[in-house]
Amino acid sequence: MDAVQKANSGHPGAPMGAAPMAHVLWTRYLRHAPTNPEWPDRDRFVLSAGHASMLLYSLLYLTGYGLELEDLQQFRQWNSRTPGHPEYGVAPGVEATTGPLGQGFANAVGMAIAERRLAAEINRPDHTLIDHRTYALASDGDLQEGIASEAASLAGHLRLDKLTVLYDDNHIQLDGPTDMAWSEDVLARFAAYGWGVARVDDGNDLDAIDAAIRTANDDGLPSLIAVRTHIGYGAPHKQDTQKAHGSPLGEDEVRLAKEFYGWDPDAHFLVPDEVLAFYREAIPAGQALVADFHARSQAYGAVYPDEFADLRRRIRGELRPGAVDGLPTYKPGDELATRQASQQSIAELAEPVPELFGGAADLSESNLTDIKGAGDFEAGEAGRNLRFGVREHAMGGVANGIAYHGAFIPYVGTFLNFSDYMRGSVRLAALAGLHVIYVWTHDSVGLGEDGPTHEPIEHYAALRAMPNLWFVRPGDPNEAAAAWGLALERHGGPVALSLTRQKLPTLAGTAELAAEGVRRGGYVLRKAAGEDAGKAPDLLLIATGSELQLAFNAAVALEADGIGARVVSLPCWAAFERQDEAYRESVIPRAVAKRVSVEAGATLGWERYAGDDGAMIGIDHYGASAPAAAIFEHYGFTVERVADVARRVVREGLRGRIPTLEAGHQPAGLRS
Amino acid sequence: MDAVQKANSGHPGAPMGAAPMAHVLWTRYLRHAPTNPEWPDRDRFVLSAGHASMLLYSLLYLTGYGLELEDLQQFRQWNSRTPGHPEYGVAPGVEATTGPLGQGFANAVGMAIAERRLAAEINRPDHTLIDHRTYALASDGDLQEGIASEAASLAGHLRLDKLTVLYDDNHIQLDGPTDMAWSEDVLARFAAYGWGVARVDDGNDLDAIDAAIRTANDDGLPSLIAVRTHIGYGAPHKQDTQKAHGSPLGEDEVRLAKEFYGWDPDAHFLVPDEVLAFYREAIPAGQALVADFHARSQAYGAVYPDEFADLRRRIRGELRPGAVDGLPTYKPGDELATRQASQQSIAELAEPVPELFGGAADLSESNLTDIKGAGDFEAGEAGRNLRFGVREHAMGGVANGIAYHGAFIPYVGTFLNFSDYMRGSVRLAALAGLHVIYVWTHDSVGLGEDGPTHEPIEHYAALRAMPNLWFVRPGDPNEAAAAWGLALERHGGPVALSLTRQKLPTLAGTAELAAEGVRRGGYVLRKAAGEDAGKAPDLLLIATGSELQLAFNAAVALEADGIGARVVSLPCWAAFERQDEAYRESVIPRAVAKRVSVEAGATLGWERYAGDDGAMIGIDHYGASAPAAAIFEHYGFTVERVADVARRVVREGLRGRIPTLEAGHQPAGLRS
Repeated sequence: MDAVQKANSGHPGAPMGAAPMAHVLWTRYLRHAPTNPEWPDRDRFVLSAGHASMLLYSLLYLTGYGLELEDLQQFRQWNSRTPGHPEYGVAPGVEATTGPLGQGFANAVGMAIAERRLAAEINRPDHTLIDHRTYALASDGDLQEGIASEAASLAGHLRLDKLTVLYDDNHIQLDGPTDMAWSEDVLARFAAYGWGVARVDDGNDLDAIDAAIRTANDDGLPSLIAVRTHIGYGAPHKQDTQKAHGSPLGEDEVRLAKEFYGWDPDAHFLVPDEVLAFYREAIPAGQALVADFHARSQAYGAVYPDEFADLRRRIRGELRPGAVDGLPTYKPGDELATRQASQQSIAELAEPVPELFGGAADLSESNLTDIKGAGDFEAGEAGRNLRFGVREHAMGGVANGIAYHGAFIPYVGTFLNFSDYMRGSVRLAALAGLHVIYVWTHDSVGLGEDGPTHEPIEHYAALRAMPNLWFVRPGDPNEAAAAWGLALERHGGPVALSLTRQKLPTLAGTAELAAEGVRRGGYVLRKAAGEDAGKAPDLLLIATGSELQLAFNAAVALEADGIGARVVSLPCWAAFERQDEAYRESVIPRAVAKRVSVEAGATLGWERYAGDDGAMIGIDHYGASAPAAAIFEHYGFTVERVADVARRVVREGLRGRIPTLEAGHQPAGLRS
Repeated sequence: MDAVQKANSGHPGAPMGAAPMAHVLWTRYLRHAPTNPEWPDRDRFVLSAGHASMLLYSLLYLTGYGLELEDLQQFRQWNSRTPGHPEYGVAPGVEATTGPLGQGFANAVGMAIAERRLAAEINRPDHTLIDHRTYALASDGDLQEGIASEAASLAGHLRLDKLTVLYDDNHIQLDGPTDMAWSEDVLARFAAYGWGVARVDDGNDLDAIDAAIRTANDDGLPSLIAVRTHIGYGAPHKQDTQKAHGSPLGEDEVRLAKEFYGWDPDAHFLVPDEVLAFYREAIPAGQALVADFHARSQAYGAVYPDEFADLRRRIRGELRPGAVDGLPTYKPGDELATRQASQQSIAELAEPVPELFGGAADLSESNLTDIKGAGDFEAGEAGRNLRFGVREHAMGGVANGIAYHGAFIPYVGTFLNFSDYMRGSVRLAALAGLHVIYVWTHDSVGLGEDGPTHEPIEHYAALRAMPNLWFVRPGDPNEAAAAWGLALERHGGPVALSLTRQKLPTLAGTAELAAEGVRRGGYVLRKAAGEDAGKAPDLLLIATGSELQLAFNAAVALEADGIGARVVSLPCWAAFERQDEAYRESVIPRAVAKRVSVEAGATLGWERYAGDDGAMIGIDHYGASAPAAAIFEHYGFTVERVADVARRVVREGLRGRIPTLEAGHQPAGLRS
């Protein structure tokens, strides 16, 4: 109450109502180590209801994580350790960035998956190193979100028995009573998913909460405990109303609530010494847990030194030396889809990168994400291939949870078009700095017959705009393998691979140049005639993905016309923009203003590289249902057309967006 | 089978398995009029499982919608009327663009909502004009998607009794048996949502299907009927396997299936005359339905001529003359958030635009979307304010369904940041050309204390990249009102309003210029000194939204320095880019190359207007949790800084992206 009041902003009601269940969980169940918050075998606690952040910050302060009263007093202030919603990496003990509803729930499912898989990989008879639980606290809003429904269904299917979710059932959401919009039987729904379910009728009854958690932990199923709480408990005028949800209570109401609790109404941020002492028992208790773990670790390490060293490496987030050295290379004449090169890359990485763990949203045969022979991750078997079902958003949230857990590099696949369905979780991976890899295939109208509902157009721009996401669209099989290298070696954020359905030729030069060139985000794939003799190119042809071959072959055609075109491959703008200016200038010299960009997608953003005097060949409308070759032909994505546009750029000053030759069916608003 | 085989691409299995239930529904229940497919009181049928498009195309051909055998033979070919997934507007009788799973399910919920609301508005005692049902056919994948879970929960809450969903329960999805990823009790889950549920054990038992539909239609609840089917029924080697899902069966297997059916294996696209005659009975039956409707319409129109004329207008999709004339205007000195100006606009539009119908995803008190006094749309009352709960994706899909239904302009609200959660449905609104309005508030770091999890950064670029979506970011209260005018008057696609949480001053000139200027997407808000005398501006300051005031006041400051800066407001790029070149040149003259863009978001795309010699003030990292004023100050979004950058652009040739002054907490990948 005090912190929200002091900030004059925030959500006091949920922390007040949920404090008793948090107290029981944190003092009686949660196995954690405040002075060693990264201890790998700790139980995880995810505050999915991120707006109740002050509850988490209070617990972190009380139990001794190093968050201080002064931090609480800086709630929601510039650069404080206590932002409005919990942010991973900003304060110790915050296991996940939450606030966008439903995400924390899915993260918790991912953490429970990671725990089970890691335990299966690491533990040995008589040597249990990994054995921890995942708890989450969720709100009504969390459980209304589709991502939570998807994740819950998956958790039930997988029988994630070490997952327990406390549901803060306070009957109030932002617009008013939950029954304005929600009258389902939540427990029956979760039971249908295969969860153990329980209800605690009085959210202030510590023993009832305790009993419910104990039962939940022992029932062999993921569990949901609906705890009937009262939002803003003790605030006489605001309890049980949405006025306690998202605004400070007001000075007078805070005083009255303190009086209701039998607390000094004039005291602010008061923590009695005996309260602090009680909670701080978490410190020695945690130290004992860590000491015991260290003892077990030493015993394990003595018997399994290689496995133990590799586990430590994985937890540190480092690759094995040479882990990506085995990535495949291809030679001109080799023709395969970049999704196939990705599949071969995954196959090569499976052994040297055991932390690679992932799957697809019911498209594994299209995304080619399976690790052959590694088994499925199922209720009865902790194999390596995850089967997400058609649940893209939960897949994204689960991947984040696996990354938060540590010791894994999760990768997840669907069609690039359906990155939209998981965009909320992709953003959180980028914001939290998680090392997650997206395998998004069928990445243009090259998808073909499935048509515009499945063909990405605006997605490259939409993903390039997202801070800290590295979007990579490799242009041939060698670039695809190199993109996997980039994806594995990146630190501090997610990498998206945008891959073709259709076959692409291996281009001359990529075998030699792509590994380094892709890592730098962009490079000169083919110099113009005379460049080595010091002649400046007449023109830059800049392309990504399946259109790189068009730029390459157009350059060859232009050479016959006496036009010297340099071909620049630009698969990852984010990486390229982190190169120093000298490198960027060496690839895209400012002095060469005649440029043509070629990419089968929205032109938005391409002015950055095409410049005022450049032309952009793109698609600023929706795709079409037809064989891929027909679509490219009708749109004018051909070598001849690229060469023709280039000639007109050089000779006639053509510039700006170049429309497709014909667009096919388009919505009325685009036609009119 | 034949069409998929001829296309050598597509999904034969679901149409084969689901044909019996479709037959029963279309020949015994669906009230439709093939020769009058737009008849407003028709039952709606949504093929949510859009990959089964050949089932729908076959029905449209058989029942006489004007789709011909030649169209079926052009399945999945360039510009045919039979694309891979059904596309609204491409063939008559296709009620919704489907394929992205779960969307059609949510569309159906929206159609049922629209029907109930329209019936409540229009019908009178003894005069029932509107009374129809909504049917959908959904796959396992549809029901796995979170959007369907959200929509189902909402439908149960609202007791949409005229909604019946047939679930093609064939136990197979793309990756294999559904139980690889899905073991929930689907019917129990839907019962928990408040649906009536039933199971048909034999999907070829027409009478059992018939009985189940009859019961479902009479149970007073939305209903789900799980029909146990066999994917690829009759194909001896592929039935009940995923090989029948997404690939042609192969010539041999097609022959064997025809033999199994007792059909001539050498015949292709064979439709016996008596079969066609049987199905074509739908034509006279539909004509009788329409004739009856016309008789009822005439009786209604005789008693309620104004109501009837207004209904016809709404169905035509035209506004009342002068409908937007009452939009509010503001004068300098008026200071209010653009979300508040939107609220006042909605209040003014409520009466003259009765077709405006919408709500928010549990943020109505933040988005300010309610129409006061108009009542809620609830199970017992068909009021005008929809309460979506925290279900953004379903909200988007429901809005699409309301728009598909016709006679409404749906509008839906959440925070701009959570447009990500509903992006899949926004894209389909744009692709299908639906007139949906998004009220997305809290549109920058001006959101303040809730922090980076809630603050849009990349969203402007991501939404501008989407074809046929008009994204509008008004810069003051007058522009916000004008944006509502633009949004209502648009045809053929959705409009997104990006609105502030924080108050904005009313700028001099917008009262006079914004109505026309916003409609054109961009305009000169303030000329540079001397422009009227023919002097060219030294500089263009181009801005949107809450940063327009910075550009405006910086221009004033620069004038004192003798720098003539024209202020260009550019709230809607899509509308601006549809203006003729003369107008665009009159606003942003090519000759004035010194430019500064100001927008509190990702710079991607701004090169289009800033040009090679311009500078872009933006935010290419995540936001912060702090009071809004503090964030803007720390980032350098101040009049002084804008003026300073502008001076350096003019005097020193500064150009390119201008970093924020300080970034606060950022993920490791952005720091390193």
